[in-house]
Amino acid sequence: MKVAVYRKEHFNAAHRLYNPDWTNEKNDEVFGKCNNPNGHGHNYEFVVRLVGEPDPETGFVYDMKKLSELMLEHVAERFDHKNLNLDVEEFKNLNPTAENIVIVIYNILRDKIDASLDMKITLYETERNFVEYPV
Amino acid sequence: MKVAVYRKEHFNAAHRLYNPDWTNEKNDEVFGKCNNPNGHGHNYEFVVRLVGEPDPETGFVYDMKKLSELMLEHVAERFDHKNLNLDVEEFKNLNPTAENIVIVIYNILRDKIDASLDMKITLYETERNFVEYPV
Amino acid sequence: MKVAVYRKEHFNAAHRLYNPDWTNEKNDEVFGKCNNPNGHGHNYEFVVRLVGEPDPETGFVYDMKKLSELMLEHVAERFDHKNLNLDVEEFKNLNPTAENIVIVIYNILRDKIDASLDMKITLYETERNFVEYPV
Amino acid sequence: MKVAVYRKEHFNAAHRLYNPDWTNEKNDEVFGKCNNPNGHGHNYEFVVRLVGEPDPETGFVYDMKKLSELMLEHVAERFDHKNLNLDVEEFKNLNPTAENIVIVIYNILRDKIDASLDMKITLYETERNFVEYPV
Amino acid sequence: MKVAVYRKEHFNAAHRLYNPDWTNEKNDEVFGKCNNPNGHGHNYEFVVRLVGEPDPETGFVYDMKKLSELMLEHVAERFDHKNLNLDVEEFKNLNPTAENIVIVIYNILRDKIDASLDMKITLYETERNFVEYPV
Amino acid sequence: MKVAVYRKEHFNAAHRLYNPDWTNEKNDEVFGKCNNPNGHGHNYEFVVRLVGEPDPETGFVYDMKKLSELMLEHVAERFDHKNLNLDVEEFKNLNPTAENIVIVIYNILRDKIDASLDMKITLYETERNFVEYPV
Repeated sequence: MKVAVYRKEHFNAAHRLYNPDWTNEKNDEVFGKCNNPNGHGHNYEFVVRLVGEPDPETGFVYDMKKLSELMLEHVAERFDHKNLNLDVEEFKNLNPTAENIVIVIYNILRDKIDASLDMKITLYETERNFVEYPV
Repeated sequence: MKVAVYRKEHFNAAHRLYNPDWTNEKNDEVFGKCNNPNGHGHNYEFVVRLVGEPDPETGFVYDMKKLSELMLEHVAERFDHKNLNLDVEEFKNLNPTAENIVIVIYNILRDKIDASLDMKITLYETERNFVEYPV
Repeated sequence: MKVAVYRKEHFNAAHRLYNPDWTNEKNDEVFGKCNNPNGHGHNYEFVVRLVGEPDPETGFVYDMKKLSELMLEHVAERFDHKNLNLDVEEFKNLNPTAENIVIVIYNILRDKIDASLDMKITLYETERNFVEYPV
Repeated sequence: MKVAVYRKEHFNAAHRLYNPDWTNEKNDEVFGKCNNPNGHGHNYEFVVRLVGEPDPETGFVYDMKKLSELMLEHVAERFDHKNLNLDVEEFKNLNPTAENIVIVIYNILRDKIDASLDMKITLYETERNFVEYPV
Repeated sequence: MKVAVYRKEHFNAAHRLYNPDWTNEKNDEVFGKCNNPNGHGHNYEFVVRLVGEPDPETGFVYDMKKLSELMLEHVAERFDHKNLNLDVEEFKNLNPTAENIVIVIYNILRDKIDASLDMKITLYETERNFVEYPV
Repeated sequence: MKVAVYRKEHFNAAHRLYNPDWTNEKNDEVFGKCNNPNGHGHNYEFVVRLVGEPDPETGFVYDMKKLSELMLEHVAERFDHKNLNLDVEEFKNLNPTAENIVIVIYNILRDKIDASLDMKITLYETERNFVEYPV
């Protein structure tokens, strides 16, 4: 009788997409205006999905207040109002594409929550571009 | 050549989260402000997903008008503008967490629709808290 | 060179619409299912609009962080997860229609912010029913 | 380490639902007001989901700009501001239900993108009616 | 102590933009793909705004249930699942631009509601194109 | 018989809020995390509102396609995927608060459109923070 529960939080951040091993011409060709050296930014929304059986005493798969606090403490407070490339350790050597950000968020949160609960993250870069991990 | 079809409806209801076997202190500790004895409320949205092969004569997996009518008659009309704990039979002895509400909605609707069509329900308590059953 | 600035916050509450001076029949006739004695509820969103000239040193009409804090402290924390009729002083003798709630919110916030800034409140009871005061 | 990436685009189109092999009475009975001979219309939104491993050099599963261009060139430009029944080849002999439209979109796009990437389409006819293919 | 109250409803319709007094070339030049002879369509949303003093006995400026019924009976039921040019009397000789539709809706509803209440209509053709009348 | 017409477009940009005449301590005190030297960012949405009489031959107050093109050419293409402080001339010496951005957009677009049409701009920095100019 497994149920999936979802919680959505957000952060506003700047980023630049480029590969430091490439020439600027190659970066422009692949990343276009996302390679602007001074960066651009987004209102990111991220959703955590946990799957498990509701506890018979509480009716909760997981306390949404605790999940929200973990998402704020470990992700939103570290990424919000930051330049992902320059201010966030995980992206010092990792291109902050939506794909890489969603994997980083999963890796940050996975061991904060009991492994018996399946976890999946969805990240919205805009309302028209979004990603999900794992699949 | 299976297709999933989705229909969304809504209801506005009050609820209170607590376990009658616990002390009020324990309920406050676990459910926080959701344990307010006079209740609080939400604009709930619920989505039914049915999976099957489109009928070659109609091009429909299921008639969305009929699905909407079932959702309104059996769920929305019974839950809308109600206090879930006090006015809805299913929650007389069941804590109306989002997890329990989504299971109740599934159980209500499952036998109203041919078993050959897979069914899944998503329930939004707010735009930031939602649940899905079964997974 | 006046600019209007807007901030949106939310609270989730239960309420019941009725006039205690009327018979239950009259209340049912006028308020329909909103007169359910055990209440129902909504995810309310409220927006404060302030109008003034941007400060030349900050570029702000008003600090949105401060506005958010005032909205949370004086409105959201008092109304969230409450039964408006039973738990909120202002509605002990006032029917909590959207019209009356928006006037109450305006009256609460008006003297918390310098009178030189025009103020207007919009309150969403659902995405399809909303009100604005003053006009 | 597979990631799902999603891109959303839209088109505005007219359509009529009916089966030309049936009497008008039968069509009215099954399709109701959707059988209006002069048609009606929708703001359709469609989402393409691709699943694969992010390229280690770009951090992309697929370039969202290229995906957007394929969706615009092969679907939106052909369907937008059209009457699906009368102006779009694929629906000359196929009832343009949401189910059939989503299958047509999948078939159009599937061979435009490397087969190593799993593809799924979601089509929103309205915010309350939507479909997904394959499941 | 005037309050504005708003109610939103919707209809899904087809239309074609053109001026019958012009050549097809001129119509194409001015209306572009909106001049497709077979039509295209939209999910229209329309909002009625009424301004007045809340009744001291009910706390209502206007009963939202009655307003909704008027909007459904006189507008949505007449426009929904219709081709505006061919099926709706008011557009037989009037180009169904958003501007003209919003004026028609206002004229239909204005005398259904007491003149002491100011009325304004907003019509959304898409989430990115909308109009308001009167101003 | 004036009608207001609205068109919404968007751009994704980075910015930093600070006053170069102040110490960093003062900037932190006033702008908080918005003063992060490496910037942060947003998905901005901006709406242009024009008011005028519909042309009797077209039924348009203004051609939405032309309005969209002006908004894209003069605003979105100049601001999108940019760092407003470093890449956009108007903000070299002007703090890019929402208030200042909306005034800049108005000043850019005002003389591109006939002065007989009243113009107003709304800018959404997030769905919870937005501004309007003029009022």
